[in-house]
Amino acid sequence: MFISFEGTEGVGKTTLIKSLVDYLQQQGKQVVLTREPGGTPLAEQIRQLLLSPQDEAMSENCELLLIFAARAQHIAQVIQPALNAGQWVLSDRFIDASFAYQGGGRGLNVDTIELLRQQFVPVMPHLTFWLDAPVELGMQRAQKRGALDRFEQEKLEFFQKVRTVYQSRAFAEPERFIRLDASQTPAQILEQAIAVLKQNQLLTSN
Amino acid sequence: MFISFEGTEGVGKTTLIKSLVDYLQQQGKQVVLTREPGGTPLAEQIRQLLLSPQDEAMSENCELLLIFAARAQHIAQVIQPALNAGQWVLSDRFIDASFAYQGGGRGLNVDTIELLRQQFVPVMPHLTFWLDAPVELGMQRAQKRGALDRFEQEKLEFFQKVRTVYQSRAFAEPERFIRLDASQTPAQILEQAIAVLKQNQLLTSN
Repeated sequence: MFISFEGTEGVGKTTLIKSLVDYLQQQGKQVVLTREPGGTPLAEQIRQLLLSPQDEAMSENCELLLIFAARAQHIAQVIQPALNAGQWVLSDRFIDASFAYQGGGRGLNVDTIELLRQQFVPVMPHLTFWLDAPVELGMQRAQKRGALDRFEQEKLEFFQKVRTVYQSRAFAEPERFIRLDASQTPAQILEQAIAVLKQNQLLTSN
Repeated sequence: MFISFEGTEGVGKTTLIKSLVDYLQQQGKQVVLTREPGGTPLAEQIRQLLLSPQDEAMSENCELLLIFAARAQHIAQVIQPALNAGQWVLSDRFIDASFAYQGGGRGLNVDTIELLRQQFVPVMPHLTFWLDAPVELGMQRAQKRGALDRFEQEKLEFFQKVRTVYQSRAFAEPERFIRLDASQTPAQILEQAIAVLKQNQLLTSN
């Protein structure tokens, strides 16, 4: 089982993932918790390049290709081996983030991103939980956490475009891409996520 | 004018480029000397990731995408602006190296590399000088220079495959991709390169 978690900044992804990992481990599952960009020492170095504010403006194509480079490494070193070993993989962001951030936020050609997906991403999540909240709310939470990274420094409009792409992906793939209302309490969100897993018969309903 | 220089390790690319830059500057040309992977502070950071021997095996797709990420940044920040300003750009390696090293050496699908070229490389060299010498010779010279980088650590067979791809590119594009016999003296190689520039009417023949 491969589950990804998506959403703009400050919507509570980390909280949900951690409590879901706890829950799954209590059910006796072997769980690999990982994230993008990153997930391996090398991919985390690429993450640093992507997130650190740089003196030099990063070209949009460079950003897109760095993200797919980190993802290629992440798939080869972490995701594929874990899935082959029958483990659960929970990833904080995956391919949908490229469509949302680079396609929506940056306005890059969606066909180009799709082409990279076809060439370099041989595995798709079985389920994706999208934590959705008004963009303003998440930005306020992210700001409270301290220094903003290169993406968090983007303007409101950027995140609204990101959210719009997530909305359209939820609409296009309702069975895989599940919207969770992030304005609920963490306990409510977790309960909903577990219910979805049970509906999909990924967990027994006892 | 955009000129790239290709060849396996230790064939004397750096020596040729430096003396050609001197020559062109004496002719009153504005010359930008650059290299791949690298050429901007950010792209040089990506170069570091690519060349440093890592504890973690770098997946071939990750390597390919990192190289194209660095190239996208290099084109946007250095090559395009210099060409737009009417300057000469001399680059130590460019797109042909991806076909030779990742396509030939690593055995990656050439169609995938061609597809990345179409999407992310809007500019091609007007001329490419390929310094060709028997692979063993270059490897010995590279070893004398000290600690070997991640590519230089490859085996003889790897560089033979790289050389074969360069050969086929010289055959396919004889007007752009010019073989120079690297077993000649530096002065002879420089003289030949200048003769090619004059033949192509890029320099006056006086």
